[in-house]
Amino acid sequence: MEEVNELFVPENKLNLALADASTLPTISITKLDLEWVQVLAEGWASPLKGFMRERELLQVLHFGSLLDGGAINMSIPIVLPVSTETKQELEGCAAVALEYQGSCVAILRNPEFYAYRKEERCARQFGTTCPQHPYIKMIMEGGDWLVGGDLEVLERIKWNDGLDQYRLTPKELKQKFKDMQADAIFAFQLRNPVHNGHALLMQDTKRRLLERGYKNPVLLLHPLGGWTKDDDVPLSWRMTQHAAILEEGVLDPSSTIVAIFPSPMMYAGPTEVKNDGSSRGYQSLKARGAEYQFGCLTGAMALQSQNDCRSELLHRWSRPSWHASSCDEAGFV
Amino acid sequence: MEEVNELFVPENKLNLALADASTLPTISITKLDLEWVQVLAEGWASPLKGFMRERELLQVLHFGSLLDGGAINMSIPIVLPVSTETKQELEGCAAVALEYQGSCVAILRNPEFYAYRKEERCARQFGTTCPQHPYIKMIMEGGDWLVGGDLEVLERIKWNDGLDQYRLTPKELKQKFKDMQADAIFAFQLRNPVHNGHALLMQDTKRRLLERGYKNPVLLLHPLGGWTKDDDVPLSWRMTQHAAILEEGVLDPSSTIVAIFPSPMMYAGPTEVKNDGSSRGYQSLKARGAEYQFGCLTGAMALQSQNDCRSELLHRWSRPSWHASSCDEAGFV
Repeated sequence: MEEVNELFVPENKLNLALADASTLPTISITKLDLEWVQVLAEGWASPLKGFMRERELLQVLHFGSLLDGGAINMSIPIVLPVSTETKQELEGCAAVALEYQGSCVAILRNPEFYAYRKEERCARQFGTTCPQHPYIKMIMEGGDWLVGGDLEVLERIKWNDGLDQYRLTPKELKQKFKDMQADAIFAFQLRNPVHNGHALLMQDTKRRLLERGYKNPVLLLHPLGGWTKDDDVPLSWRMTQHAAILEEGVLDPSSTIVAIFPSPMMYAGPTEVKNDGSSRGYQSLKARGAEYQFGCLTGAMALQSQNDCRSELLHRWSRPSWHASSCDEAGFV
Repeated sequence: MEEVNELFVPENKLNLALADASTLPTISITKLDLEWVQVLAEGWASPLKGFMRERELLQVLHFGSLLDGGAINMSIPIVLPVSTETKQELEGCAAVALEYQGSCVAILRNPEFYAYRKEERCARQFGTTCPQHPYIKMIMEGGDWLVGGDLEVLERIKWNDGLDQYRLTPKELKQKFKDMQADAIFAFQLRNPVHNGHALLMQDTKRRLLERGYKNPVLLLHPLGGWTKDDDVPLSWRMTQHAAILEEGVLDPSSTIVAIFPSPMMYAGPTEVKNDGSSRGYQSLKARGAEYQFGCLTGAMALQSQNDCRSELLHRWSRPSWHASSCDEAGFV
């Protein structure tokens, strides 16, 4: 059973780390990169210790898993692209500082620079290399090298958009589940407003859990909060809509947690769903005393990418994905 | 432990099957298709019962495995493409006959026609959709539909090229290993003449096996016999070269079997290697009393595609591939 692996610098070492960071060469990162820093820092991608090294990237692309120390479901690359100039300048450094909008956010220790085989990454992850695909477009426009390494994140990532209080870390979610005395948890990730189909799915899942004898199933309504494509509904609107459906009693406020999943969206169909499911399976839902319904989650998540060109696959794959993740129904930490 | 699953019609039912086949609508297949029929019929792709149905294809593309009844390593599609006309004409039939150059070779029972998502298949299998890739080119030029189903193969596939005696089935190989009293078997697949690097690898593997206490390690020198791209060395020349190096004592004739692996070559780098390794792992090498060195095989096979654009991956991946296949060293049937 995996524990949440946060990558934050302990508070009593923060001054030391800040002093250290100020002496290091820096890499300026984008907003998208910072979202991935948040995913890594809060432990959503445990057991990763930072941006993927080449060995990890290859495992993920070829096996949909990390293999060192036992197979762990992980099907999407979490990588940091850099330019040829940056690579030439910084290769061989023992550590670099990552800077976002002029502020140092993290130290990347023992960096490993390696070639970014973009076509192969896209082909294997997305099942297409179509340059118009919105995430593939960003990949193709980004740097030609990747840098992996161990991440030490200086402080919690805040976006100051009035929604930070919804950005609960896996550890905080675990505590919430405990406080609410949940005996079953079912999660629903989406990047759209909740529509009737979603609502029925969540209501039906709750009904089934009660039928199976659970007394206090808790719903984690988990809108994706990172980058989405231009024509998707912005996060702030979606959060307002989610609040409205709770207020109207479509979902039961007393047994629902609304929290933001900080990850960017990749639009990678079933490959992404497989990952997102396990992200919660490993990191937050296996709270003590909480039974985790991966089957429900995957079924629910099958609706997530309904506009995706590979949605057919997605629907068909909800069960095998569940099997392949080897995620037992009763996952007590 | 998987057993070899041959798909030949039993001799006492051959007349019945022939009579049956003569009443069925037919699909004309290509030489490439017939090579895949041979792979399936002889049991190299056990537990497949015929050309992949959509469920099997999706499992293979997304998980590199067949998942029904326990995960079994299988990373390449084995599919039969057909034209839109054929699909329209034959959809709904209970069975079809497969015909090669005017002769019926097999019956496909309970056929399932489904859309051939060529771009996605290529992207996920090859890590590229480059239309100049020689196997991708054939995929793109072939039919837009696939038909899966249960295969009943009427008789052994012969090519009448003077080399059929080298085309040993998994069952025949098992018997050979037994007759030779092999206590360890190591296999080397190649689609090129044996060069010095190959020879050293095989000699070194034998040395290591003897060091580890095996008394009678047997080498299966296993040239690929199906379709290869135009500029590869033809099979007949390679077989002559293989005979010459045995005659000259580069390899020891008394502890070597030269046999032809009937599969076509896909030039799919590590994804293909992973499959080819397990093809033998499951089907032939786990003979009673024979220890199977998958690590050696994968190491050896890492040289197979040295001209491939993804050969870097291939080399780096020899060990993880071994792990992921969950192929124990001591595999007794």
